[in-house]
Amino acid sequence: MSVYIMADEALFQFLHNEVIQYIYKSSEHGEMENGRCITKLENMGFRVGQGLIERFTKDTARFKDELDVMKFICKDFWTSVFKKQIDNLRTNHQGIYVLQDNKFRLLTQLSAGKQYLEHAPKYLAFTCGLVRGGLSNLGVKSIVTAEVSVMPACKFQVMIQKM
Amino acid sequence: MSVYIMADEALFQFLHNEVIQYIYKSSEHGEMENGRCITKLENMGFRVGQGLIERFTKDTARFKDELDVMKFICKDFWTSVFKKQIDNLRTNHQGIYVLQDNKFRLLTQLSAGKQYLEHAPKYLAFTCGLVRGGLSNLGVKSIVTAEVSVMPACKFQVMIQKM
Repeated sequence: MSVYIMADEALFQFLHNEVIQYIYKSSEHGEMENGRCITKLENMGFRVGQGLIERFTKDTARFKDELDVMKFICKDFWTSVFKKQIDNLRTNHQGIYVLQDNKFRLLTQLSAGKQYLEHAPKYLAFTCGLVRGGLSNLGVKSIVTAEVSVMPACKFQVMIQKM
Repeated sequence: MSVYIMADEALFQFLHNEVIQYIYKSSEHGEMENGRCITKLENMGFRVGQGLIERFTKDTARFKDELDVMKFICKDFWTSVFKKQIDNLRTNHQGIYVLQDNKFRLLTQLSAGKQYLEHAPKYLAFTCGLVRGGLSNLGVKSIVTAEVSVMPACKFQVMIQKM
């Protein structure tokens, strides 16, 4: 891995950390409770995801179905943002997809101890929004949630909203 | 340029935009005036710059002097963040350096009209901090300011603070 790619990753990670800290610092002043911080992060991710897909899919062929879109998110989209693919994609074929990342980049910096597990949600909110925004710009409306069982592994659940 | 490099750039730009908008939105609610927004952005940049240099220079040989450090910032550091080098580096040999970027990435998205010139400072503050933080971690204390004459060209002035 070249030093430039390493720096790219680091740039995103550091800026992402700054955003979390900034938003949570505002909340300490009593201006926002935790839920609203998560929502703010999720909304930021949503807009960034929309923007990325807009640039990203200019030259990309249309997708043939929903599964095809999800595969694109798991491979190309994930690699561009996190430098690796999603490790496992599962679906119930009824509009629920589970994307598993066994080594999620935005969690690897947190220590693996159980006491850090409670901090995980704020490191996942932006990415939930990122996926939702990306999908949205590909015409797929969804609700995206995330859960961590053993750090830094992480599952994102995408529930497609039929329109 | 590969689609991944394009996406990296876009990711940073979009997130950078979100941060600016978020900070300025807080200020609209009367919580902060413009100067404090600029300071917040500059401080974020400072910490990100520190972090980047920390990762970046692990395997790099020590620098022989101040000018050597500045060249590193203009070439390697700038390329890693902005995908291009600084176009022109000048110094008065008394601790002032002027780094000129003829096509500064974070400004290219703004329209070139004069009416947008007033918005330029908020798109420069983070980067001023980024340079200051990078230099700081290389043992060089400085004050960094920026000015735009014709968009998207931009000059960063680094004044070294002798310790």
